[in-house]
Amino acid sequence: MISPTAIVSSKANIGKDAEVGPFCIIHDNVVLGDHVRIQPYCELGVETKLSDGSPLVVGSGSLIRSHSTFYEGSSFGESLVTGHQVTVRELTKAGKNLQIGTLGDIEGHCIIGDYVRMHSNVHIGHYSTVGNFVWIFPYVVLTNDPHPPSKVQRGCFLEDYSVIATMSVVLPGVRVGTHSLVGAHSLVSRDVAPHTVVAGVPAKKLCKTDKIVLQDGSGRPAYPWPRHFHRGYPDEIVELWKSSFGPD
Amino acid sequence: MISPTAIVSSKANIGKDAEVGPFCIIHDNVVLGDHVRIQPYCELGVETKLSDGSPLVVGSGSLIRSHSTFYEGSSFGESLVTGHQVTVRELTKAGKNLQIGTLGDIEGHCIIGDYVRMHSNVHIGHYSTVGNFVWIFPYVVLTNDPHPPSKVQRGCFLEDYSVIATMSVVLPGVRVGTHSLVGAHSLVSRDVAPHTVVAGVPAKKLCKTDKIVLQDGSGRPAYPWPRHFHRGYPDEIVELWKSSFGPD
Amino acid sequence: MISPTAIVSSKANIGKDAEVGPFCIIHDNVVLGDHVRIQPYCELGVETKLSDGSPLVVGSGSLIRSHSTFYEGSSFGESLVTGHQVTVRELTKAGKNLQIGTLGDIEGHCIIGDYVRMHSNVHIGHYSTVGNFVWIFPYVVLTNDPHPPSKVQRGCFLEDYSVIATMSVVLPGVRVGTHSLVGAHSLVSRDVAPHTVVAGVPAKKLCKTDKIVLQDGSGRPAYPWPRHFHRGYPDEIVELWKSSFGPD
Repeated sequence: MISPTAIVSSKANIGKDAEVGPFCIIHDNVVLGDHVRIQPYCELGVETKLSDGSPLVVGSGSLIRSHSTFYEGSSFGESLVTGHQVTVRELTKAGKNLQIGTLGDIEGHCIIGDYVRMHSNVHIGHYSTVGNFVWIFPYVVLTNDPHPPSKVQRGCFLEDYSVIATMSVVLPGVRVGTHSLVGAHSLVSRDVAPHTVVAGVPAKKLCKTDKIVLQDGSGRPAYPWPRHFHRGYPDEIVELWKSSFGPD
Repeated sequence: MISPTAIVSSKANIGKDAEVGPFCIIHDNVVLGDHVRIQPYCELGVETKLSDGSPLVVGSGSLIRSHSTFYEGSSFGESLVTGHQVTVRELTKAGKNLQIGTLGDIEGHCIIGDYVRMHSNVHIGHYSTVGNFVWIFPYVVLTNDPHPPSKVQRGCFLEDYSVIATMSVVLPGVRVGTHSLVGAHSLVSRDVAPHTVVAGVPAKKLCKTDKIVLQDGSGRPAYPWPRHFHRGYPDEIVELWKSSFGPD
Repeated sequence: MISPTAIVSSKANIGKDAEVGPFCIIHDNVVLGDHVRIQPYCELGVETKLSDGSPLVVGSGSLIRSHSTFYEGSSFGESLVTGHQVTVRELTKAGKNLQIGTLGDIEGHCIIGDYVRMHSNVHIGHYSTVGNFVWIFPYVVLTNDPHPPSKVQRGCFLEDYSVIATMSVVLPGVRVGTHSLVGAHSLVSRDVAPHTVVAGVPAKKLCKTDKIVLQDGSGRPAYPWPRHFHRGYPDEIVELWKSSFGPD
């Protein structure tokens, strides 16, 4: 259902059973999949000369919450879910089942894998690369300029299953290894080895992730997290995790 | 006065002399007190399956500034004042005279006392408990997961009159004692004793709060702050403070 | 062009060829220059008793992006450019060619020079002073209260050409010297000498800025940055820089 107060271009390509809320604006260069829900006050497909002419593509089953802004030229796989007041610029390509929390700000020219979870108020700088199953917690910033301001732009790289805790900054060009954990309020200035916990300003290695004990009384290690945390992932993924990481 | 461009459910319960600004949306499950003012582009009473069916309740004399979003199932005492672009999820219960600054993000399932002051861009994670007369400054985050991501959720506890300065993170389950002060840009990983100043990453005890001298030329201690800071509090509270903490 | 869904006061003074997007609200006490573009969902000239009756003035050629809020009583020179969801309170005076990134929050009573660049999610506290050609990166906060909460307000002072990197906090009354660089995730508690790099919590002097080598293969120093970074500045400024700082 398209709200009568929404302004929707006749050139936009909107899938079946889409919902577009009150006071939304959908521009020409937009492709929305089936069963997409767009909450009020969203503007999708904002034009920019910085893009390449490609449309904003939002996969089927997606939910974009209110007051969000998406530019043309970015694409999202199925089942994107956003919080409120999200901004996404042009030329970012994201896989399926991405979650972007409230106040998220994705600057554009980023590559984002499948099943990535970004909590509230995450800032993903230009040219960042985020793998699959990555978790990014509130107020994390991925940077890109090693000596600002300059023309040099070196995006960060977060490998699969890595976790960046609240209020941490990843410096330009840094690679955070698979299944690693960056503690809260850290400044990550060097590459992080896989399965490693780092923390501090600047971040230093604390231990391997398997030293962290799950505080649910089980006495088991908290990482790799896919062993015990399954909420929101499809059954086939969880089954795959069981064979990869062992049962909970 | 209800703006003619606002979309207001006939099932919403709106007190007398309420003002609802242009382009607002008020859903069914909303109870607004008398003399409430809702600025433009606000959406109140957003439905969610994660709530318990209770309404959004906003006490009399409240002001919700523009571009804000409140879900059903949370309640606020009289004289709530928000900044712009605030998001409040379900099942939070707040006392009277709460202030939430611009870009504030309250995740839900929180308990908040009376006369709490949150500045801009504060993030209150699920299951946080905030006492009375607490001050929370910009970019503070209260967290809840000791080893993210997991199913374990341990909210923080900020006791009465505590003060958390800018850009500090409180780790899960930490209790910040009454009348204590967390310095700016700190990571609070352990409980903070009452009347104590902590700072750093991780935060360490610096001194008792009465060692901090008010920089107004008086030479008096800056804490307990209710001795000298009265702006925005009712006379009866200030009188009570005088008998509790001594005159300024 | 004024959108038919915008609500524009007949008392507002709007220059020629202005564009006002859908669902905007322009109040009485607003002066917009020629060729100004206001994107959707913006509210300009919000009334406040805390101002002095002067209008919101936005210089010619400015672009205010969507979901932004400007109060009456502040003024901006020509060619202001904002991101989305910006909030600017009353009684701030800014020069020309200011950029305020998405989610920027300028509290009011600030003085801002010419050609200042604020990236996303910058918080400028009351009574801050920002010189010319200053760069402020994401999640930086300029504070003002030395012992919060109190009635004492000491704004920060950022001198010309200074650079504050991501997630840094400048404490009240601190002066950051010309051409200096504050590293990411720092807490600046003391004045910073000109041409100096500081970093850490609290920030300490690391070196002079000319020790930082530009990572573009040239082997030249990265600072003063106007020697190599010219994007977005007018030719006459760049020519002036060449004579002041030497050619790139």
